[in-house]
Amino acid sequence: MGGNIFGELFRVVTFGESQGPALGCVIDGCPAGLEISVEEIASELERRRPVHRNEADIPEILSGIFEGKTLGTPIAILVRNTDCRPQDYENLLNVYRPGHADFTWQAKYCIRDHRGGGRSSGRETLCRVAAGAVAKKFLSGYGIKIQASICEIAGKGAEQAQKIIEEIEAEGNSAGGIVSCLVTGLPAGLGEPVFGKLDARLAAAMLSVGAVKGIEFGAGFAAARMKGSQNNDTPAGKTNNCGGILGGISTGGEIEFRVAFKPPPSIKKNQKALDANGKIVDLAIKGRHDACIVPRALPVIEAMTALTLADLILLHRCTTL
Amino acid sequence: MGGNIFGELFRVVTFGESQGPALGCVIDGCPAGLEISVEEIASELERRRPVHRNEADIPEILSGIFEGKTLGTPIAILVRNTDCRPQDYENLLNVYRPGHADFTWQAKYCIRDHRGGGRSSGRETLCRVAAGAVAKKFLSGYGIKIQASICEIAGKGAEQAQKIIEEIEAEGNSAGGIVSCLVTGLPAGLGEPVFGKLDARLAAAMLSVGAVKGIEFGAGFAAARMKGSQNNDTPAGKTNNCGGILGGISTGGEIEFRVAFKPPPSIKKNQKALDANGKIVDLAIKGRHDACIVPRALPVIEAMTALTLADLILLHRCTTL
Amino acid sequence: MGGNIFGELFRVVTFGESQGPALGCVIDGCPAGLEISVEEIASELERRRPVHRNEADIPEILSGIFEGKTLGTPIAILVRNTDCRPQDYENLLNVYRPGHADFTWQAKYCIRDHRGGGRSSGRETLCRVAAGAVAKKFLSGYGIKIQASICEIAGKGAEQAQKIIEEIEAEGNSAGGIVSCLVTGLPAGLGEPVFGKLDARLAAAMLSVGAVKGIEFGAGFAAARMKGSQNNDTPAGKTNNCGGILGGISTGGEIEFRVAFKPPPSIKKNQKALDANGKIVDLAIKGRHDACIVPRALPVIEAMTALTLADLILLHRCTTL
Amino acid sequence: MGGNIFGELFRVVTFGESQGPALGCVIDGCPAGLEISVEEIASELERRRPVHRNEADIPEILSGIFEGKTLGTPIAILVRNTDCRPQDYENLLNVYRPGHADFTWQAKYCIRDHRGGGRSSGRETLCRVAAGAVAKKFLSGYGIKIQASICEIAGKGAEQAQKIIEEIEAEGNSAGGIVSCLVTGLPAGLGEPVFGKLDARLAAAMLSVGAVKGIEFGAGFAAARMKGSQNNDTPAGKTNNCGGILGGISTGGEIEFRVAFKPPPSIKKNQKALDANGKIVDLAIKGRHDACIVPRALPVIEAMTALTLADLILLHRCTTL
Repeated sequence: MGGNIFGELFRVVTFGESQGPALGCVIDGCPAGLEISVEEIASELERRRPVHRNEADIPEILSGIFEGKTLGTPIAILVRNTDCRPQDYENLLNVYRPGHADFTWQAKYCIRDHRGGGRSSGRETLCRVAAGAVAKKFLSGYGIKIQASICEIAGKGAEQAQKIIEEIEAEGNSAGGIVSCLVTGLPAGLGEPVFGKLDARLAAAMLSVGAVKGIEFGAGFAAARMKGSQNNDTPAGKTNNCGGILGGISTGGEIEFRVAFKPPPSIKKNQKALDANGKIVDLAIKGRHDACIVPRALPVIEAMTALTLADLILLHRCTTL
Repeated sequence: MGGNIFGELFRVVTFGESQGPALGCVIDGCPAGLEISVEEIASELERRRPVHRNEADIPEILSGIFEGKTLGTPIAILVRNTDCRPQDYENLLNVYRPGHADFTWQAKYCIRDHRGGGRSSGRETLCRVAAGAVAKKFLSGYGIKIQASICEIAGKGAEQAQKIIEEIEAEGNSAGGIVSCLVTGLPAGLGEPVFGKLDARLAAAMLSVGAVKGIEFGAGFAAARMKGSQNNDTPAGKTNNCGGILGGISTGGEIEFRVAFKPPPSIKKNQKALDANGKIVDLAIKGRHDACIVPRALPVIEAMTALTLADLILLHRCTTL
Repeated sequence: MGGNIFGELFRVVTFGESQGPALGCVIDGCPAGLEISVEEIASELERRRPVHRNEADIPEILSGIFEGKTLGTPIAILVRNTDCRPQDYENLLNVYRPGHADFTWQAKYCIRDHRGGGRSSGRETLCRVAAGAVAKKFLSGYGIKIQASICEIAGKGAEQAQKIIEEIEAEGNSAGGIVSCLVTGLPAGLGEPVFGKLDARLAAAMLSVGAVKGIEFGAGFAAARMKGSQNNDTPAGKTNNCGGILGGISTGGEIEFRVAFKPPPSIKKNQKALDANGKIVDLAIKGRHDACIVPRALPVIEAMTALTLADLILLHRCTTL
Repeated sequence: MGGNIFGELFRVVTFGESQGPALGCVIDGCPAGLEISVEEIASELERRRPVHRNEADIPEILSGIFEGKTLGTPIAILVRNTDCRPQDYENLLNVYRPGHADFTWQAKYCIRDHRGGGRSSGRETLCRVAAGAVAKKFLSGYGIKIQASICEIAGKGAEQAQKIIEEIEAEGNSAGGIVSCLVTGLPAGLGEPVFGKLDARLAAAMLSVGAVKGIEFGAGFAAARMKGSQNNDTPAGKTNNCGGILGGISTGGEIEFRVAFKPPPSIKKNQKALDANGKIVDLAIKGRHDACIVPRALPVIEAMTALTLADLILLHRCTTL
């Protein structure tokens, strides 16, 4: 579906710009009768709360929940921006930051909100996390759990993450990383045939997150180097080379995938940039930026996984008589 | 959209089982006035023609084209199966082949066509190639070209592909590989925001192909190990770490991505398999199987890329006043 | 969804032109395990078989059914045209028949298949009837029955239908009429809120049939002239002014609606028509045309009702936890 | 699409319950660069402002508009409820009002917000009017105008509307009516083939409005009583029996249709009603209700027409090369 709508049956629409009045989402298609509180949404938002921006990120539920339960009607969740600093972006009015979506959005729409990346900002993922909190609650009723964790930061193991990020930040540089995601409790049979495969949907969900540049399931790229006899998981064996998915449908085993994040393009070091006149200019980016978004991305990865699976749970209800 | 429908505006529906009477596709939303001949479709099908099955794969156009031009109405393309051998699959009625979708489809639908994998067979990609031929023709009017090529087979460079495949086939084993895809001529501005990103759509398109286990754009997983100052492409520089996509929208540069294929799970070697009673049994797979599908997958990758881009070209027409 | 795709979960794509090689449909999303035979489809097609064209209209099932049961995969049904007479339409190459879609399709696509109306022909409804036969079978498992019947032909009661049509045909003229449709056995609770109402969907389904110019539910236009105390159906009362639908959701009572068909625009009498140069010319339409399509439209109305309800049955499965 | 989402390219999602904190909409797919002010939205809302409820209905734009122009990103519009009186509905907790959606929503969701009809309230149409204001502005750039007007109230001509409504209100009863809608300036060629016809879409749009029970285009039900020679509009003639639509595509002439509204089911007179235990009870409805909604429905009819046409304008851009 359209650019800002995700899902076929468990659908989410998100809205909002980084420096506008508010962001939010509308969830359409969440089944009626689900118990969910504003605190459950708030606690997921807390996990991705900005470090460099003073936002409480308190969600307000505007509709769809009555006496603590979903009505089956659209659930609208609103988060006000409270710490906007448009003045920080005045120098970017006519300059396209390298590695950001400034140039491409201008090329597409011939207009853009240059303040903090507008809608292309990572702040947009807040809405996904809010919606994902509802999806997670729905999935918990099926015993399905989703856990994202850091594999690597800047090529180093997760245990050194905090230290490496601090070092790279001190350099005025930025770091990418790899996140793995594990889903347990998913029954066999989820995923639609041919174009609606479970892995196809998860791939779309993950690549829709701003800085993601790759995804692999199970053995992933390594499977391309194995022989069939090595890669086939045997019935009683211990491998999960298929990542819990065969033919695009869940096997009943654990779903495993890894996602690659590029380093944030906003760095303090001087860079060359293109301006609106096609000239190359010097640019030093100010403002408030994360040297590494991977830790804050974990709830985003989980949220997108949850939204994908909630949709597939509903789709699966229509499979047989 | 649904499991067997791809695209929002340039839409394709495919149908058909591996050992059923026919396969085909219906393209709905191809603009009127496009010149296209049955030969152009046939020549793409020729590129993916089976090695081990005697199929002419001659397409018949049933509708949507009048005096050599598209009418704007649905284009139905039909290919009859002529070399079915259902008897080859009799021993698989109650056994789930390792690495195949037999078990997962049975879990999903409680019924399946066990003959040659039914709809989960790679033969289904024939329909994608037929539809992709129309999409490619449409894109050629914009000067857009798509070229998939082999990077690796079984971990070795492409120049050794043929030899390695033969060796592995002789072992009764199978080989995976990595395909790279390059798109040239794509204008800046293609791709929809947030959930409809160009890379998200390409990822879904690629992971919808049976044996694909991973995808990466530009520097991909390697970007996760770079610092921002290394990964950011500079205006006058020669890198394409972003793979021609920023913020999910095309930059106007070349689109580059790589796709990992697992080795085909059907091998001649003996394997353990699960049967319908939950018992582990011995299995030696007969029948006609490719030891490596990567060479025949190139037109499939190109077709799915073409369908994705044709859809985005149409969506882009609605961006501005 | 797109112009030639109907339904959200129980989806149908149709294809084919009146004088092209074939017409057909692909049903995507029909649940697995439904028993259906080609004879059941053929017998519905028989009800709408042409009078003035020598077509056997024998359906061929190409996919999706295995050993008499649906697989959950796309069901493709093909009907070959066998009695095409393109020569009958040569004089219409540059003339737009009054009341037909000739001018509007030309305005839309800048190209058209002028032979027998191309895709705008009533022959296209054959595909709906084929798909509707599958939907009807699905609904029969729920005890849901659909019955369309003639209310009026040319303003007279149904009992005089045959005689009136013959008289009007003898005049070289044509007749419209009103069809009523009754659905029994539909449970309460079907229909989606706000934009996806049961009556909104049925209205779209009916107005998608070529010659339909109006629809009303229950008391319909007469309700606009009643007071609330008259129009409200009382719990123990015998009225069905609401037509079995309140707030767009089924009440559990009978669904009742009426559909108005205009007279077929092709008449033998001389008419004035516009040509491709914008001139008004004399036109006497030859070829094979029905003086009244209402009797043959009954299975079409039933088919579109069945497709709408099958879709809503599936959607309803996702309403609650 | 889903129950609370309207449109394929110019998409609107609405949310909110009658007695909840707020209502609103998100417009996804409005082209970038459209000038629109909050005042333009407010003035349309003013036209449907409640008589019996003290609501300012001041819209707040939360996203998608920057310096007075649309960005191409989702436009979120919020309206707070300020005059809720949940206590008025306490006696309806376990009673289903005749002619309302109370019973059917309970049957569907097994839970409902009983206060003022919850989401099935006519208050929901506020969101349509807000979104419609944006669609109207978009259409105005094409010279397209939409005008709804009252034809009849309670079977009497429009000139007596005010007087009749007052009389019927004084009786403690309610009145329905007929609205006609005229669209001028629409170019030929709008409307999609087969299932996506202009009239099919308008019919769905109109029947999605709560109290609507019927629709007819051009001569409508009267066409069913004409002969072909009478009903066919002649090239130079003055009739518009086709209502500006042939084969589901606009002719370039005026679009004309009529919509039937039932009388509001909430009346002051005593009625029999069903309760949650299946018993028939006496009911006298208190609270604040319109004796006739037809005058306030005019901007709703216009809004739904505008949303339908805006979507078709965008779809039409994809018709040809």
